[in-house]
Amino acid sequence: MSDGEVVAQLREALGDRVDTDPASLQIARADKSGHAAASAPLAVVRARTVEDVQQTMRIATRTGTPVVARGAGTGLAGGANAGAGEIALSLREMDRIVEVRPDDLIAVVEPGVLNGALDAALAEHGLWWAPDPASRDISTVGGNIATGAGGLLCAKYGVVRDAVLGVDLVLADGRLLRLGHRTVKGVTGLDLTSLVIGSEGTLGIVVGATLKLRRRVPGDVHTIAAVFPDVRSAAAASAAVTAAGIQPAIMELMDATCLAAVHALLGMEVPPARAAQLTLQTDGPAAADEAEAIATLLRERGGEVAVSADPVEGERLLRIRRSMHPAMETLGTTLIEDVSVPRSALPAMFDEIARIERAYGIVIPTVAHAGDGNLHPNFVFDAEPNAAGIVEVPPTVWEAADELFRAALKLGGTLTGEHGVGVLKSRWLADELGDDQWELQRQITRVFDPAGILNPGKVFVA
Amino acid sequence: MSDGEVVAQLREALGDRVDTDPASLQIARADKSGHAAASAPLAVVRARTVEDVQQTMRIATRTGTPVVARGAGTGLAGGANAGAGEIALSLREMDRIVEVRPDDLIAVVEPGVLNGALDAALAEHGLWWAPDPASRDISTVGGNIATGAGGLLCAKYGVVRDAVLGVDLVLADGRLLRLGHRTVKGVTGLDLTSLVIGSEGTLGIVVGATLKLRRRVPGDVHTIAAVFPDVRSAAAASAAVTAAGIQPAIMELMDATCLAAVHALLGMEVPPARAAQLTLQTDGPAAADEAEAIATLLRERGGEVAVSADPVEGERLLRIRRSMHPAMETLGTTLIEDVSVPRSALPAMFDEIARIERAYGIVIPTVAHAGDGNLHPNFVFDAEPNAAGIVEVPPTVWEAADELFRAALKLGGTLTGEHGVGVLKSRWLADELGDDQWELQRQITRVFDPAGILNPGKVFVA
Repeated sequence: MSDGEVVAQLREALGDRVDTDPASLQIARADKSGHAAASAPLAVVRARTVEDVQQTMRIATRTGTPVVARGAGTGLAGGANAGAGEIALSLREMDRIVEVRPDDLIAVVEPGVLNGALDAALAEHGLWWAPDPASRDISTVGGNIATGAGGLLCAKYGVVRDAVLGVDLVLADGRLLRLGHRTVKGVTGLDLTSLVIGSEGTLGIVVGATLKLRRRVPGDVHTIAAVFPDVRSAAAASAAVTAAGIQPAIMELMDATCLAAVHALLGMEVPPARAAQLTLQTDGPAAADEAEAIATLLRERGGEVAVSADPVEGERLLRIRRSMHPAMETLGTTLIEDVSVPRSALPAMFDEIARIERAYGIVIPTVAHAGDGNLHPNFVFDAEPNAAGIVEVPPTVWEAADELFRAALKLGGTLTGEHGVGVLKSRWLADELGDDQWELQRQITRVFDPAGILNPGKVFVA
Repeated sequence: MSDGEVVAQLREALGDRVDTDPASLQIARADKSGHAAASAPLAVVRARTVEDVQQTMRIATRTGTPVVARGAGTGLAGGANAGAGEIALSLREMDRIVEVRPDDLIAVVEPGVLNGALDAALAEHGLWWAPDPASRDISTVGGNIATGAGGLLCAKYGVVRDAVLGVDLVLADGRLLRLGHRTVKGVTGLDLTSLVIGSEGTLGIVVGATLKLRRRVPGDVHTIAAVFPDVRSAAAASAAVTAAGIQPAIMELMDATCLAAVHALLGMEVPPARAAQLTLQTDGPAAADEAEAIATLLRERGGEVAVSADPVEGERLLRIRRSMHPAMETLGTTLIEDVSVPRSALPAMFDEIARIERAYGIVIPTVAHAGDGNLHPNFVFDAEPNAAGIVEVPPTVWEAADELFRAALKLGGTLTGEHGVGVLKSRWLADELGDDQWELQRQITRVFDPAGILNPGKVFVA
């Protein structure tokens, strides 16, 4: 069936929720990874209700049209990029907070609500939506669930998988399933809620979620910033904090290139050459004691340490870390990677990154969620957009990334800690899973989506 | 193929790991639910290695023989009961702790290690295996994973799903898959680790697990025991503790019948008629403050409250709760149920239980993990074993249980919070999942186990 006929069917069923404005179609090609589909999708459907989603999927099934679910488009692996012949199904306008239950510590939400907006609404009840990707102010809860996103607080407060009790899922054929439960415990049948979390649009369309909330942590955070002579000593110090049994809420590491770029961006003094920084926060009733213990430990390991119990000063110190992505953009085009290793392997992983930098003659500025072992090496390169307006990652960068992935796997790590596989990492998926598991996972997607219309060409690419 | 031929093949491959002692076969028929398979399995294979498990599964696939995985046999839903023509595959002897990494807060274990034994070994490193089913001293980590078991500490410290990073799984055809990761974060492909947790032997045989540990919580626990005039006021008080934003580590509720039975068992003074008890523990740096706040709240709500910071006295108070199961055994044969409801619905669920007691003229002593909304109503009855030596649950008890399940579902709850579906709840599974989801889940099991030899007749019974 022609694109025109599919659009006509969509329009008949969904009216003005079908957006074919060229500018909208261009936006739907890309996410924040810098990668984009080679051409634009046939339409963006802006669903407002579950029924809208079901109608879209029924038409997609009937016409054999692929569907790419999309939230705010802040993904970093190309998982929500929609291309030729595909429907981009936007859940962004389904952004209601349906129910907040302080007594049961749960909220029921639509997928398009922004993580930050949800958390702000919960704050009025003393409640907290803990999953905090760095993008929280611009990313949706549905996108968070689809990618299995992480964030800065995961070592202490868990990942999104620990904070979702149930999801409502529209299948490829338009049927609606209610997965999971509203209770703290529940083991009735297989845990399809967890299976959907991180499935990147390959199993169905998430149209609702029951979230497990926390109380806001009382008291002020304490912030520790420590400058080390080089990245390896900073990494070793962060591993020592974990090994000492102290649990900071946040522990972020920036290497020298990152630090210098951020200082330049923010108009701060030039940091010492090769200097790397650890930024930590402690919270809760033991925040002051923990901050002191951490400061002592970091000083013993050669850090130049500043501690603050003042929230404003703390936010200023953390701002250096939060300015990372804009600072990278000043250096060139970046491919942001996302390997994760056991925390004890952090120093070794930084050694590997240094080795790959030397081998390829490139710079790989790296920031790490050192509290949980998740690194974001940034491959920075200069490249002009091609005829289709796409900046392609140069082959040598992919070769270097390939070495990086293999090094992480060898150290007991994983290809992606929180960004997902999308299009950018699909070629390495079988390396980590093994062929048998890859095939089994592929078969599971076929149970949900027999015709293969859900996000084809992502994650599982044969 | 005849049972004898299957046993011959097993013996040839596995020698003395194949146990056909009639006493062993009798034990493998039953778990702690009181329910047993109608007759005995053809053999118990006592695997010592992953290769033993793979060999068993290859023979099972070749001969079309069903396999029932089994740990310590402490399940409460009949999920590990093995019957005629089946192989009981015991993982109990695979009980090594393979690796403990205090720096990465992980342990790698074989499935047969006891939860309590693992935790004792971890204590030497200051580490803690938090998942704590009441059976922890006699139940295995593998069984904990297979059932998705809960325990007393779940509201504060999570369920087993939150504490497992990866599992090694032998498929029906004998292939070994390594699922999950060793890192805090990891989103490479579908989360099959979570899918296996709680799958009750229907997807594969868990032969290893990478566990996410916690540091032991420093300081002494504080224990609060509060007696209320009736169970409803105790339930309302427990919901009020949650709603007030105080997070005890443990919050257990016992109704009047339970309390009286335990007092009798332990030779304690007879409690006031209708009196119900809440037992709470607080821990961590704010333990004393939280205990005081809880005591004040419970007194305001009519509780007669005792608080203790003495660990010995605390253990004495908690012993009353821990003696629940032996006390029930003094009353008759019991069917232990396991519904879970949102915490705010606890008082309403106790009203429903009282209604069902009146309607059926039976007593349903109930204990609840009130901190997380998980109730264990005990249906007590007198019945003689039948010719096969099985005590059958009388039809009226099943009718009453049916009303209980439906009441829990209506209150936003679930059929089973932590015991699993097994054989005892399979007939209600579709009521909670809906037919579409039931069928989808069934198809997923077929991806792992196309021939349907893994624990047939459990969980998914058409």
